[in-house]
Amino acid sequence: MALVVQKYGGSSLESADRIKRVAERIVATKKAGNDVVVVCSAMGDTTDELLDLAQQVNPVPPEREMDMLLTAGERISNALVAMAISAHGFEAWSFTGSQAGVVTTGVHGNARIIDVTPSRVTEALDQGYIALVAGFQGVAQDTKDITTLGRGGSDTTAVALAAALNADACEIYSDVDGVYTADPRIVPNARKLDTIPYEEMLELAASGSKILHLRSVEYARRYGVPIRVRSSYSDKPGTTVAGSIEEIPVEQALITGVAHDRSEAKVTVTGVPDHAGAAGRIFRVIADAEIDIDMVLQNVSNTAGRTDITFTLSKANGPKAVAELEKLKGELEFDSVLYDDQVGKVSLVGAGMRSHPGVTATFCEALAKVGVNIEIINTSEIRISVLIRDAQLDDAVRAIHEAFELGGDEEAVVYAGSGR
Amino acid sequence: MALVVQKYGGSSLESADRIKRVAERIVATKKAGNDVVVVCSAMGDTTDELLDLAQQVNPVPPEREMDMLLTAGERISNALVAMAISAHGFEAWSFTGSQAGVVTTGVHGNARIIDVTPSRVTEALDQGYIALVAGFQGVAQDTKDITTLGRGGSDTTAVALAAALNADACEIYSDVDGVYTADPRIVPNARKLDTIPYEEMLELAASGSKILHLRSVEYARRYGVPIRVRSSYSDKPGTTVAGSIEEIPVEQALITGVAHDRSEAKVTVTGVPDHAGAAGRIFRVIADAEIDIDMVLQNVSNTAGRTDITFTLSKANGPKAVAELEKLKGELEFDSVLYDDQVGKVSLVGAGMRSHPGVTATFCEALAKVGVNIEIINTSEIRISVLIRDAQLDDAVRAIHEAFELGGDEEAVVYAGSGR
Repeated sequence: MALVVQKYGGSSLESADRIKRVAERIVATKKAGNDVVVVCSAMGDTTDELLDLAQQVNPVPPEREMDMLLTAGERISNALVAMAISAHGFEAWSFTGSQAGVVTTGVHGNARIIDVTPSRVTEALDQGYIALVAGFQGVAQDTKDITTLGRGGSDTTAVALAAALNADACEIYSDVDGVYTADPRIVPNARKLDTIPYEEMLELAASGSKILHLRSVEYARRYGVPIRVRSSYSDKPGTTVAGSIEEIPVEQALITGVAHDRSEAKVTVTGVPDHAGAAGRIFRVIADAEIDIDMVLQNVSNTAGRTDITFTLSKANGPKAVAELEKLKGELEFDSVLYDDQVGKVSLVGAGMRSHPGVTATFCEALAKVGVNIEIINTSEIRISVLIRDAQLDDAVRAIHEAFELGGDEEAVVYAGSGR
Repeated sequence: MALVVQKYGGSSLESADRIKRVAERIVATKKAGNDVVVVCSAMGDTTDELLDLAQQVNPVPPEREMDMLLTAGERISNALVAMAISAHGFEAWSFTGSQAGVVTTGVHGNARIIDVTPSRVTEALDQGYIALVAGFQGVAQDTKDITTLGRGGSDTTAVALAAALNADACEIYSDVDGVYTADPRIVPNARKLDTIPYEEMLELAASGSKILHLRSVEYARRYGVPIRVRSSYSDKPGTTVAGSIEEIPVEQALITGVAHDRSEAKVTVTGVPDHAGAAGRIFRVIADAEIDIDMVLQNVSNTAGRTDITFTLSKANGPKAVAELEKLKGELEFDSVLYDDQVGKVSLVGAGMRSHPGVTATFCEALAKVGVNIEIINTSEIRISVLIRDAQLDDAVRAIHEAFELGGDEEAVVYAGSGR
């Protein structure tokens, strides 16, 4: 008998009917002779509705209470799925993150899982029950306060449980039936991948692919948990995320896909005195504000011995970052802080880059051909990313996808929406 | 410095604006130099919306999951109130029932509080914070599962916390500004009471008065917690529930008020063999189904040595009770089970009854005068209740209120809705 962990995204649970469909799939898995642990996100728009309510009562709601508020969403969806399952004559118990032993750091809104001790989940399984665990949430080790894992946190909950329970499979269900060479909504002939190694999936996730949350892939890689990305609405096998690029023979290494990201903004600190430590001070201030940055660019100093420092970050953190930097102005004596949220990022990912020197050239040529200007370029061993104008993002994705001949013959099936 | 426990009902929290108003009142109490603990019900219709969702996925949802589902409502409202408070520059921490140490029995949907160990609440108060506790919910002592206290459970949470924290005051806020001699929506000149002893409030609550939940008054009486019933929308002193009728000199004892109840249904088991134990079997079956009954009537046996047994219970439990009794038919050989939900109950309450023999007569005369037929009559030392036709309930309330001259001079202010 196998132990299967299944995670269902918010769009797969947005109505009573969809919840019933999900319950049928869970029951089918149980009937097939498996032990089943299910992780559910909040129903469709619940999270946005709660965020809206919070905004109405307090424009800057305290993060501890925000976590208390948002975690109600998963609690609701999990209880409803449990009810839908029992309508089929199967016993199901739902647990909060805390009850399931998801122990985290105390950083509200963006906690990290420290440990998973799912004794109550295994208890339920031992009694033949289907166990449901509220995704996205945990309990802080020190304060015992409720925490949330940040966007996509439910994926991480599922992978962490799969690792702790030593599950045979971890299936992530959403409204897409796998990982594609590009977003099919932008590139109609994008091709579905059957398998993808962890490193490439990490790069895609870090580059804006919404299919799996970055942290969940990191977790899966660390604990060697194979993830299957599948659609809630079909029985297609989906895409398996497993294995390392190190196992791929160089000659077989390929360019895997194109990712894009509209969620970032660009901050430029101009006229920074070009002395040692200036950049350090800037990035320390940002780090102290718990803000992650992505791309970084430092210009060559001008004759006045001053330079511009540019970096990208999530739009959500933009105002906070600007405010923090303004405070630094007196101390660091730079000219000004510029903020630009009309940017987009397009990335090409593939282990094949390591053995094919021409990739960067082809990449830039493809963009030039469609008149796209590159503002920042940033590469890893298996990824090239560039920051461009937001409005040109779709053209850029199509151009690159075509230049590297990533397309398939048939058109991809596209569903709307996406879960958390 | 005083410690004040305040409870706010769902209608006082039904929108972001009302939540802000509640927050202002809480902050004002804190500014006045008090320690404040707040218990909130779920926002307005949240509970009904969740119940509706549950019905859609499973007509008979498992009670454990129902509790998991419904408790999300208080979690949301409490977090939002905490956010609204912090918008005024005051720190507020919200706690789930479990975090606040509300330990209960394991009866899902109708758990009773066994113990309250609010160490995290006192911790918050010691740090100068305002503490919020999700009402209506607790954690089962044995299973550690989430439980709910049943309708009106938030009142009980507030009183239980006030007792455990040895609070100086327990204020229950809703959309009515006190306890009236009758429902002002039915009797326009109903009079607001300044004080009412526990026993009388218990009888009113047991007789259908929605102002305070029966169990919360029982709890307040046992631990000697004075309750102040106030309106969220005014600064009127409201009604104080405290003291015992034993302390009232007989000559000052009065008739206090009229209560009515539309929530009950009537079950009649006909042709029950009139032998010892028959009635016992019937009520055992009902009790084993965790169903509370109210009024009971057993007719004199007919010549065939058979009798009818009639009792009333909450409409919500009607179908369940009928089903349980039908199972008993083979064993007990009665004729049939009749179900009637077109009934209403009207009650007169007052310590003065003990010293005024004519009360029952006046009561029945008043009903006769308006053509109301009495189906069951049931009395306690300080209460008379009768079961009548639902459609005649309003007339009956007005007739009795008038017969005992309970009215005041001014018209009562009436608000819509009522919290849980």
